[in-house]
Amino acid sequence: MEVVNQIASVRDRLKQNRHKKIGLVPTMGYLHEGHLSLIREAKANCEVVVLSVFVNPLQFGPGEDLSRYPRDLQRDIQVAKEAGADLLFAPSVEEMYPHPPLTQVQVKGLTEPLCGSSRPGHFDGVTTVVAKLLHIVEPDHIYFGQKDAQQAAVIQRMVEDLHFPVHMVTCPTVREEDGLAMSSRNVYLTPEERSQATILYRSLSEGEKLWRQGHWLNSKDIVSFIEDQIQTQPLAKIDYVQVLHFPDLEPVHELTGSTLIVAVAVYFGKTRLIDNMIWN
Amino acid sequence: MEVVNQIASVRDRLKQNRHKKIGLVPTMGYLHEGHLSLIREAKANCEVVVLSVFVNPLQFGPGEDLSRYPRDLQRDIQVAKEAGADLLFAPSVEEMYPHPPLTQVQVKGLTEPLCGSSRPGHFDGVTTVVAKLLHIVEPDHIYFGQKDAQQAAVIQRMVEDLHFPVHMVTCPTVREEDGLAMSSRNVYLTPEERSQATILYRSLSEGEKLWRQGHWLNSKDIVSFIEDQIQTQPLAKIDYVQVLHFPDLEPVHELTGSTLIVAVAVYFGKTRLIDNMIWN
Repeated sequence: MEVVNQIASVRDRLKQNRHKKIGLVPTMGYLHEGHLSLIREAKANCEVVVLSVFVNPLQFGPGEDLSRYPRDLQRDIQVAKEAGADLLFAPSVEEMYPHPPLTQVQVKGLTEPLCGSSRPGHFDGVTTVVAKLLHIVEPDHIYFGQKDAQQAAVIQRMVEDLHFPVHMVTCPTVREEDGLAMSSRNVYLTPEERSQATILYRSLSEGEKLWRQGHWLNSKDIVSFIEDQIQTQPLAKIDYVQVLHFPDLEPVHELTGSTLIVAVAVYFGKTRLIDNMIWN
Repeated sequence: MEVVNQIASVRDRLKQNRHKKIGLVPTMGYLHEGHLSLIREAKANCEVVVLSVFVNPLQFGPGEDLSRYPRDLQRDIQVAKEAGADLLFAPSVEEMYPHPPLTQVQVKGLTEPLCGSSRPGHFDGVTTVVAKLLHIVEPDHIYFGQKDAQQAAVIQRMVEDLHFPVHMVTCPTVREEDGLAMSSRNVYLTPEERSQATILYRSLSEGEKLWRQGHWLNSKDIVSFIEDQIQTQPLAKIDYVQVLHFPDLEPVHELTGSTLIVAVAVYFGKTRLIDNMIWN
């Protein structure tokens, strides 16, 4: 596996491989098993796997954790290689944004609920950097995790609306043994927060069980149940609990026959965790 | 030359030509010598020339001339073929916008002065459709005319900011014998309007001559001179006359040593004409 920092180097290395199937796994680094599952999935379906590691300032709001976002490129290189990546692209901010970025790619509608309302501008930063990476790498397949379900829905819509010549693959959320969704931000948690953070998974799972038993008639009751569950943990502060249609993220009027996404965002101290499940 | 209406057909026809240099000339059709000069320039530098003909609703505002914009696909096919195009892509609105377009590409700053302030949203429509065409055709070179100088500057910035793997070529404005810049909208003009419309070119040329003689100390005087010239024509109604730095379209503080764009937009009846010159 080669490590490059320049856009021109990525293009140069891929020039000879344009006839091969290329997979791109875009990440912010500090790789965990969730990222590695994407690399492995890409490796199984593509001949060349490119991993990008870039903490994208454009998708962080003022007061968010850009400066303290965890980074460990040496470890990332090690584990990406083991997982099967062929090329690791780790650009600087100056390489990705040589000018003040006047151009942005924006998906309306889908970016408004859930994390969009808690993190204004976040998804514009995500779609803009993914558009850039797609133009730099020109992959056949691009891989994202279902843990960031709204991100996946937004990028899928961008790909369709702008006719990007790429096939998008969304892979299942990878969890710790006790159910906590893998996230680079889990490293921020104190042992006590870490222990209470399993409530995200537990409340979603418990809710799904009751839903399958036909327990609820409307989405408000689902939200109340999950909120109550989360509030059993004294360190948890709810940002949102929402039930929406999936994948269009529209409000739910009729539970029966719908595919739902039940999504939560919860603060433990300054750390904001998200999780979701698709119920269908 | 083949004519296709489907995105899939474009991709299919180009699949076998990916090793060749591909040029894209995006137009709204009703081709004139300006468009044909772009096709010829593309033909001189590329092995495959794709011409797109699409009147893009997204770049027209309410009350603008979308419904009456001139169209003549049969003639376009004829002249495009003669000029050397290899593939003409003429999609329907449904083909280009199968869903309500939630995704837009927006360039800030550069889109604010000149036509951007007279036509809010116009350039967002332009950049969005050009991004789509770039993803559909994946050309090596893309061609635009200098007549739409702000459009060219905005798209150039989009290409750079988003790292589109394409080289952009801007070709000189093509003029009628009396100096009027070629435009599909010239067909709207009555004979009297057509005759008075030469004032755009005449005022810009006269202004340039005086500027080269060192006639002016500030851009306000240039604007006044050109406005006075245009107002000698009773049917002319000025939308704007502006002098800006080129190509960043920033305000001018110091005339000496600067490259200027002097740009005008003038109504004759309902018809809005634009023209510009680069002074350096």
